[in-house]
Amino acid sequence: MKIAIYGYGNLGRGVECAVKQCADATLTGIYTRRSPASVKPYGDTPVYRIDDILAHKDEIDVLILCGGSATDLPEMTPTFAKTFNVVDSFDTHAAIPAHFARVNTAAAETGHTALISAGWDPGMFSLNRLYASAVLPQGKDYTFWGRGVSQGHSDAIRRIDGVKDARQYTVPVDAALAAVRAGENPALTTRQKHLRECYVVAEEGADKARIEQEIKTMPNYFADYDTTVTFLSEEELKRDHSGIPHGGFVIRTGCTGWNGEHKHAIEYSLKLDSNPEFTASVLVAYARAVYRLAQKGEYGCKTVFDIPPALLSPLSAEELRATML
Amino acid sequence: MKIAIYGYGNLGRGVECAVKQCADATLTGIYTRRSPASVKPYGDTPVYRIDDILAHKDEIDVLILCGGSATDLPEMTPTFAKTFNVVDSFDTHAAIPAHFARVNTAAAETGHTALISAGWDPGMFSLNRLYASAVLPQGKDYTFWGRGVSQGHSDAIRRIDGVKDARQYTVPVDAALAAVRAGENPALTTRQKHLRECYVVAEEGADKARIEQEIKTMPNYFADYDTTVTFLSEEELKRDHSGIPHGGFVIRTGCTGWNGEHKHAIEYSLKLDSNPEFTASVLVAYARAVYRLAQKGEYGCKTVFDIPPALLSPLSAEELRATML
Repeated sequence: MKIAIYGYGNLGRGVECAVKQCADATLTGIYTRRSPASVKPYGDTPVYRIDDILAHKDEIDVLILCGGSATDLPEMTPTFAKTFNVVDSFDTHAAIPAHFARVNTAAAETGHTALISAGWDPGMFSLNRLYASAVLPQGKDYTFWGRGVSQGHSDAIRRIDGVKDARQYTVPVDAALAAVRAGENPALTTRQKHLRECYVVAEEGADKARIEQEIKTMPNYFADYDTTVTFLSEEELKRDHSGIPHGGFVIRTGCTGWNGEHKHAIEYSLKLDSNPEFTASVLVAYARAVYRLAQKGEYGCKTVFDIPPALLSPLSAEELRATML
Repeated sequence: MKIAIYGYGNLGRGVECAVKQCADATLTGIYTRRSPASVKPYGDTPVYRIDDILAHKDEIDVLILCGGSATDLPEMTPTFAKTFNVVDSFDTHAAIPAHFARVNTAAAETGHTALISAGWDPGMFSLNRLYASAVLPQGKDYTFWGRGVSQGHSDAIRRIDGVKDARQYTVPVDAALAAVRAGENPALTTRQKHLRECYVVAEEGADKARIEQEIKTMPNYFADYDTTVTFLSEEELKRDHSGIPHGGFVIRTGCTGWNGEHKHAIEYSLKLDSNPEFTASVLVAYARAVYRLAQKGEYGCKTVFDIPPALLSPLSAEELRATML
């Protein structure tokens, strides 16, 4: 299958790496709003202006949209689903139904297959919430994120006066994880579930006490959490905090038996050195499913919930039954 | 949907409990080879002789086959797939392709939908092996079982002369789990992955040293493992080892990046108080999918790899996207 990328930031670069690992996929083009000459891919895939993409229509089985969820994808995905089979990583959970409806109309009316909200949350975590709740209907599930870098929270700190750079880690609270795993079904507040660790480079002469206060009292982002603020030098930030790790846990506990007398715990966890590269790897696996569905004429918008797992694997159904079942 | 059970052992009893938790399912009958009067269900579902099942055909949307994999299911599933939509938990991994072929012929030729090998391994563990390998193609996965009771190994001990009763636990080796989680990709021997703990009630006057020796040197079952043997009284066995817990881990570690420079770990684990009741809960979730596929005319034999996850949930696609994605 011939894959193309639109948008060459961290996620687009991750897709380039992920396609390299797939013997059944070729990356035929990287499309950008920037000047193509300014984009330097890892490999030798040609870079084109996005305005020229129609000239390459025959070289693209699936277009992987690597824009941001806030402003890019809500426009991008419905637009390109009219001409291409597409996959995106739209991750604004509350806006998924509206995004789905718009992409579904665009794709179904023009005979294309689209898959939205692939990645790990939404994505692999969503799948695990669904499977676990179907198998243990009498139960409760919990999602914890981290330890990992939150780009949105890091950006929020950077907007504070006197802050030169910052990195924020979301960290699950060990005691909360332990209570959930023990099947105690705790009612957890926002503060009880996650901590926020902030690493901040202050401008020379800035009032660090004021910066720390502004961070810790910032509504929505930090006020509802136990937050730690550590000031460090620019060199230290670069040396110790330049990665983009993430991960987390989906845990469901529930009971079975005529009187609910037996307890069960299902736990799924991810520990990721690179959040964008892992997300990109999920996008490429779902591109394979989109390609196969489009070949069968199954058009319209899909999510990870609609995809038979076998379609994600390069192996045949026979091979999967013989080796993985 | 109207569910019926064939076979009322531990698994059949688990299915009875699992259906009770599903608002969209009714248990219409329990079928048995025994005398119906000798079968005492938890609830008030009628018990019938299996020979009378055709008279109740209209009361059965999906028949859940709760026989054993060794001798029952290889005959049962192809036979009943000619008349009913069926689900089984066939778990002899090496024989799955042959079982699939026979069930597929029976179901496809007569317009029925069958799903084989549902449960947790094969089943939920298989799904996790598939998802993880599709998402991290450059990686390696490991399956660990336990801590849990192995029926087959317990039976093997009971066959030894002088043994009155026994219970065997399969236990994953902590050091092996740690090495796998750390992404070390260890090459693990059988002995390095699992321990075997045996709790044995000896007949009065039996030679315990000889029994212990026979257990530890039994080919296939114990000789390749570090095995501990603990003798105890019948009362102690009943008091401390009457449950049927199980569980385990599927872990895949792999790398992404242009030169594989970033590591990732995906881990799925189950901790089950009751192996048969959890297996039964999976069977009932897949019965829902089978019912829906049969209504759409999608006949033949399926496995968990073929089923879109959304079909397992009583919620609609819209509800799932709004609440779980």
